Amino acid sequence: MVSVDLLLTTNEWNSKVIVILSDSIDCDSSDPIVRKRSEEILKRDVSWAGHLQCSGYTMIKLRHGNNLNLARVMLQKIKGVILVQVPLYNAAVAQALWRRDLSEENVLDLNRQDAWQWWNRFRCAADFDIKLRVVLEFNEIEEPNLDIVHRWLGEPIEAVVIPSTMFTRDCQNNPSLSEAWQKILLHFLQLNVNIILATAAGANNANFKLHSDYLRNFRDVHKDAQRLQDSDDILKTQSSPLYGNFDCRAHEIFEKKSMKYEFYQNAIAAALIDRVSDQEIDDKLTVIMILGAGKGSLVQSALNAAEYTKRKVRVYIIEKTHNAIRTLAAMTEKFWSTKDVRLFSSDMLEGSPPEKADILVSELSGSFKDHELFLERLDYAQHFLKPDGISMPSQSISYVNPIMSFKLFNDVRQIVHKRNFAPDRQGDYHSHSETGLAAPSKGIYNIGIPQPLFTFLHPSRDAFIDSSLYKILNFSVKMDCVLTGVCGYLEITLYGDIVIRSVNSCTHTHCLPSWLHTYFPLTNPLEMKRGQIIEMHFWRRATKTKIWHEWCLASPFTTRIYKSANNSYSICCT
Amino acid sequence: MVSVDLLLTTNEWNSKVIVILSDSIDCDSSDPIVRKRSEEILKRDVSWAGHLQCSGYTMIKLRHGNNLNLARVMLQKIKGVILVQVPLYNAAVAQALWRRDLSEENVLDLNRQDAWQWWNRFRCAADFDIKLRVVLEFNEIEEPNLDIVHRWLGEPIEAVVIPSTMFTRDCQNNPSLSEAWQKILLHFLQLNVNIILATAAGANNANFKLHSDYLRNFRDVHKDAQRLQDSDDILKTQSSPLYGNFDCRAHEIFEKKSMKYEFYQNAIAAALIDRVSDQEIDDKLTVIMILGAGKGSLVQSALNAAEYTKRKVRVYIIEKTHNAIRTLAAMTEKFWSTKDVRLFSSDMLEGSPPEKADILVSELSGSFKDHELFLERLDYAQHFLKPDGISMPSQSISYVNPIMSFKLFNDVRQIVHKRNFAPDRQGDYHSHSETGLAAPSKGIYNIGIPQPLFTFLHPSRDAFIDSSLYKILNFSVKMDCVLTGVCGYLEITLYGDIVIRSVNSCTHTHCLPSWLHTYFPLTNPLEMKRGQIIEMHFWRRATKTKIWHEWCLASPFTTRIYKSANNSYSICCT
Repeated sequence: MVSVDLLLTTNEWNSKVIVILSDSIDCDSSDPIVRKRSEEILKRDVSWAGHLQCSGYTMIKLRHGNNLNLARVMLQKIKGVILVQVPLYNAAVAQALWRRDLSEENVLDLNRQDAWQWWNRFRCAADFDIKLRVVLEFNEIEEPNLDIVHRWLGEPIEAVVIPSTMFTRDCQNNPSLSEAWQKILLHFLQLNVNIILATAAGANNANFKLHSDYLRNFRDVHKDAQRLQDSDDILKTQSSPLYGNFDCRAHEIFEKKSMKYEFYQNAIAAALIDRVSDQEIDDKLTVIMILGAGKGSLVQSALNAAEYTKRKVRVYIIEKTHNAIRTLAAMTEKFWSTKDVRLFSSDMLEGSPPEKADILVSELSGSFKDHELFLERLDYAQHFLKPDGISMPSQSISYVNPIMSFKLFNDVRQIVHKRNFAPDRQGDYHSHSETGLAAPSKGIYNIGIPQPLFTFLHPSRDAFIDSSLYKILNFSVKMDCVLTGVCGYLEITLYGDIVIRSVNSCTHTHCLPSWLHTYFPLTNPLEMKRGQIIEMHFWRRATKTKIWHEWCLASPFTTRIYKSANNSYSICCT
Repeated sequence: MVSVDLLLTTNEWNSKVIVILSDSIDCDSSDPIVRKRSEEILKRDVSWAGHLQCSGYTMIKLRHGNNLNLARVMLQKIKGVILVQVPLYNAAVAQALWRRDLSEENVLDLNRQDAWQWWNRFRCAADFDIKLRVVLEFNEIEEPNLDIVHRWLGEPIEAVVIPSTMFTRDCQNNPSLSEAWQKILLHFLQLNVNIILATAAGANNANFKLHSDYLRNFRDVHKDAQRLQDSDDILKTQSSPLYGNFDCRAHEIFEKKSMKYEFYQNAIAAALIDRVSDQEIDDKLTVIMILGAGKGSLVQSALNAAEYTKRKVRVYIIEKTHNAIRTLAAMTEKFWSTKDVRLFSSDMLEGSPPEKADILVSELSGSFKDHELFLERLDYAQHFLKPDGISMPSQSISYVNPIMSFKLFNDVRQIVHKRNFAPDRQGDYHSHSETGLAAPSKGIYNIGIPQPLFTFLHPSRDAFIDSSLYKILNFSVKMDCVLTGVCGYLEITLYGDIVIRSVNSCTHTHCLPSWLHTYFPLTNPLEMKRGQIIEMHFWRRATKTKIWHEWCLASPFTTRIYKSANNSYSICCT
């Protein structure tokens, strides 16, 4: 039963055995005799595998697009994880799909042969069963279109299969993958997939060792690179650092979320320079007011900026959390005793410092959802600001984008399962998808390109923030896919051109990895066809105590109106 | 608030007041000022209606296809039933939709203007809320295409609005509706809708009386006609009756289900004539075996047939139910003491009468689902039959058809709600749609034309009934609609051309109203577009103790594989 050509590393042999079902059967043959015989073989093999207690992982290879009967039989019989092996793409189909001279019927036929559709139809028949995972086969010499790769990133990929025939040799006879395939592999390594190295039966052991060493090395090297990209790299591309010669102990404060505060530091410095000319350095005092100073990072940012630009500042800290006030008081005494730092221990909505601010700095808590509350706070706080004062941030724009992400879809389902929703509660089986979730940025296929939703200026030029904004957005569907929800991103201008964006996997630049974006899940995934237009309606609703979003699809289907709840819970980054 | 031009009968005034919301507002205006003003008016009116305690029925008239914001606001505010008034159709759109020279964009645009789409998008946004009902306005001089009427029959129609301007006058100056509109009205009366007579403000009271009298009379007349059609009418079109001169008390047996037994009687008579020539009348004895005689109706059918055809028969009754045996024993003694009737009180699978049957008659229990068990029984019973014997029925064919029926969809939801499914039970929120339901035939829009699924011959020519039949069927979608499930029908040939069909709303002939068809519900309704192909896969699965169906859609979407459960429950006919 256990196929010997499934060559895994020693560790993997020890930790798991994958049962590979025969792929010479065809449960969906149009010949009923072949079909029945195939069903019998499949049932026999699955039963044998179960007897061997190897039912943890069972793998089946799809050979074409008609697998409904296969899905039906397998789902009844297998209890463990089902690995579905499919090619990354069908070269012939993929090329034909980009032609514009095809009739609709041709496209429909081709779509059925598209390898992603093989998988899609199989898992739809399985009702998106959480125990189904994809094993993706790198099977073509020519590398696929990146769109095809990106689409797979939204799927539950368990492993990629790399045939040894894909390796080329360099001058020292060492194996390597082509650069294009290296890039593709990198995309999948971000999802922490396993790599299965496939060699022909009876292949040379030495080669196997060389190939597996190459892949292990490749993974190790790029794990580091990936980590780097996640943090320092981005920081550096964004802006030149302004670290000054401040007390080394203060560095501790910066250990966490240092990037965000560096953005702030740069913004405050730029604002100080604009507001106080070099001639006024000695005379002009700038009043900086910090709303929600938390653990003091923003205060330190302001002091650093002042030191760096040599401007005189007075910092008012306005903080309502009692514990934070205690910390801030201690820090003021220890680190900032020589500075002009004044602490106000009242709620920012009530506290009244004796003077108005030149620069009003607000802490950003991060996600699309929290941003909502932040906006309202900011609006209320504007009366602390001088008429010509600078608000930091000065502008915020929310973005949305329809996505396919079965990682997020499954995460939501598991949360729901754990919460064990009572069936009689209002909203019934829908409630779980009402909440906007803070979500990581990996394992997502962006169906469209993020589009701006609502823009807010600070200080707001209107007398009040409109309590019911409404916008209709259209996204075009580039490839057949499955819509699982909507991602919300933020773009916040602190000052001038200093902009913080939440991770946007479309651009992957200028972003803060610590900022999660928000995921608005659909209750049921919706199949989308290439060329369709996704029309989405968004409402931003606010009362004095609550802010939430409502949204629905109007095209290609009209969905119910979803409501993001006020309470949010996070899905851990992976 | 209560519009005076809403002229109802006295009874209706007493029993209910409908709050009609202003239809001059436009909550979906592209002008944000108009939109916000409209929202305010809507909220004010709804709040005022609530104050007047008239929130039982609230009616809103849709004026165009963009109603998502309206839906959003209304659903938040209104607790009672929401009546959504829409025109039966847009004449201009309906005509254009049948043209073949339109581009896809044109069709999309036109579709949005289609009155059914106004309603469809509104209720999709409302997540098919059970409190939403349609009030359908007969608003055009020209009568609509019947397809358009049929589609509305699948919707939750509460009332139809007939404007007084639609009435014409005959030579005696009596008002009447055109014949075409009468036919359309009849379709809706089958759904027990209310009729709202709309007159212009300040219209003549005398006219109103004449119009309402006409409608009341029309309804009364056709209620009777409808009832007739449901029973005797069909019976007569099917076959000429064979009632003989048997004991009048035996008529009691026939009071219920008389039609079905008349079919049997005709079939047995025809078989007797074929089997015994006129020359053999006096010599040849025909052995008739009745499987599952129940309350004796089949026995009486056989005796009647023998009397009518003057053939000599011996009837074996094989019955396993103890109570039925008691009844049958009493009946044998009272009514059939002079006949050659022999009772076997054993289970049909075990009982062995001393001779084999010329004619083996099996009771049909009625629906698609029960039919399953019946088939298996029949197969086991074939060893009672002489090699050249006649099985009755001789053939059975199951049919299926995709349908839109929000009556059935809502009925299923209510059953689920009552059953209060536990969330942790296997299958989770899906379980409610697993069961095949016996369903009435009204309130259904047939998306396709019923197609034969599986055919069974009795006695089966194969050694055994195949335990896993599999068939793929394609249905083309004629008009945009919403798929809510699949209907299963039966066509059973008793003998020769004597065929019993379950009600098939496509043909409405040759059917038995007491036979419910079976409804296989989808968990979530699926929007279907004109021109799409619905590809359905059906499996018939049988073990020694269980028979069930599995099915799924493969196109235009792949759905999960549904499983019909073994236990069925009935939805009452209305």
